[in-house]
Amino acid sequence: MSQKAVISLSGGMDSTSLLAAGMREGREFEAVSFSYGSTHNPYENAAAAEIAAFYGIPFHSIDLIAVMGSFRSALLASNQKKIPEGHYEEESMSMTVVPGRNMIFASILAGFAWSIKAEEVWLGVHSGDHAIYPDCRPGFVEAMSHAIQEGTGGRVVLYTPFLHLDKTKIIKQGLLHKVPYHLTRTCYKPQLVSCGKCGACQERLEAFRNNETDDPIKYESRAALPKEVSS
Amino acid sequence: MSQKAVISLSGGMDSTSLLAAGMREGREFEAVSFSYGSTHNPYENAAAAEIAAFYGIPFHSIDLIAVMGSFRSALLASNQKKIPEGHYEEESMSMTVVPGRNMIFASILAGFAWSIKAEEVWLGVHSGDHAIYPDCRPGFVEAMSHAIQEGTGGRVVLYTPFLHLDKTKIIKQGLLHKVPYHLTRTCYKPQLVSCGKCGACQERLEAFRNNETDDPIKYESRAALPKEVSS
Repeated sequence: MSQKAVISLSGGMDSTSLLAAGMREGREFEAVSFSYGSTHNPYENAAAAEIAAFYGIPFHSIDLIAVMGSFRSALLASNQKKIPEGHYEEESMSMTVVPGRNMIFASILAGFAWSIKAEEVWLGVHSGDHAIYPDCRPGFVEAMSHAIQEGTGGRVVLYTPFLHLDKTKIIKQGLLHKVPYHLTRTCYKPQLVSCGKCGACQERLEAFRNNETDDPIKYESRAALPKEVSS
Repeated sequence: MSQKAVISLSGGMDSTSLLAAGMREGREFEAVSFSYGSTHNPYENAAAAEIAAFYGIPFHSIDLIAVMGSFRSALLASNQKKIPEGHYEEESMSMTVVPGRNMIFASILAGFAWSIKAEEVWLGVHSGDHAIYPDCRPGFVEAMSHAIQEGTGGRVVLYTPFLHLDKTKIIKQGLLHKVPYHLTRTCYKPQLVSCGKCGACQERLEAFRNNETDDPIKYESRAALPKEVSS
């Protein structure tokens, strides 16, 4: 019998490449996608559902909007007296980074895996995430692996095979494995066609260009890509 | 300036005793209570809100019903073909234990603490929890402390000062500190007055009896308490 596993599927390139890699290793996946209330999140989740259907695996959507809403309202309440008028937009921008989001995802996925008797949780954390988020760094992943092992009584193991790869290398491997990148979605903007200009689109276009391959999704514009890109 | 801290306040004796201990140490607490969908949960949360008001600290309720609902429906879906008729009640009973619940609570509390710039998360885990739940044991608490430290970039520390105490010792300390046990609630049944018969009520009554003190809350009946109790 093949190993049953839960994968966090965001609809982006990294988790889709991870799913492809795991499928090649014969894992029997169930995919989980999180709703957490950002404006582009519904588009990501729609992509994730399509990718799960492409691979013929069960797809679950877990609603964290109430949880993240509590964070936001608590933060806003605790900062109420400190924020001068006019800074509301900056404040709401900073809340697109949810403190400890990856840690919360990992815990829920571990509990979810336990509940459906899956023995593994696969997360597409990669080296490009490290700089910004402490809960995407190797030190955290190692500690969280241990916490999940202890917290599930040895039932669930955390897998992060992309931990030390960057997007260029992830795509390089994915192209060999015929990952359906045409179904993936990366853009931060709340629109169906990717903008090609936001940080997420730029990184994605750069990673494809480093692989001397055309990104198969549609963009409003690819003109903004910087000319010089190091691999 | 006093240390800002988040405490998981269930409305029960343990977390209330923990809050009292932390208040004596001068912590500036914000209390969090979780909604997770069990039938007695609304009564617990009402008690938690009253206790927070008693101590004059901010109270937040975080709604995990959608998350726990996902677990339940995934579990039911994955077991659909295996459960013979007539076993549904047993199945729904087993789901009152949510896999990894304490791990999920700890992660969310850590993210929440970070979002309001609190430096500590206080959890009332105690030695009576160890036997049943792997995510209440010292090995898990140690690993999760490390994961929270790494995952928040050193911003948040996990405190579990009751980890090696049992209910009898927790109450012994609490009685000295005049914990408002009359506001706490422990019963598993979905009713305002505690039943006195369920496992939770029995444990609570036993812990008070071991301290030769009357439990100040009302019960439907205290008759079922076993005569012989070791401390």
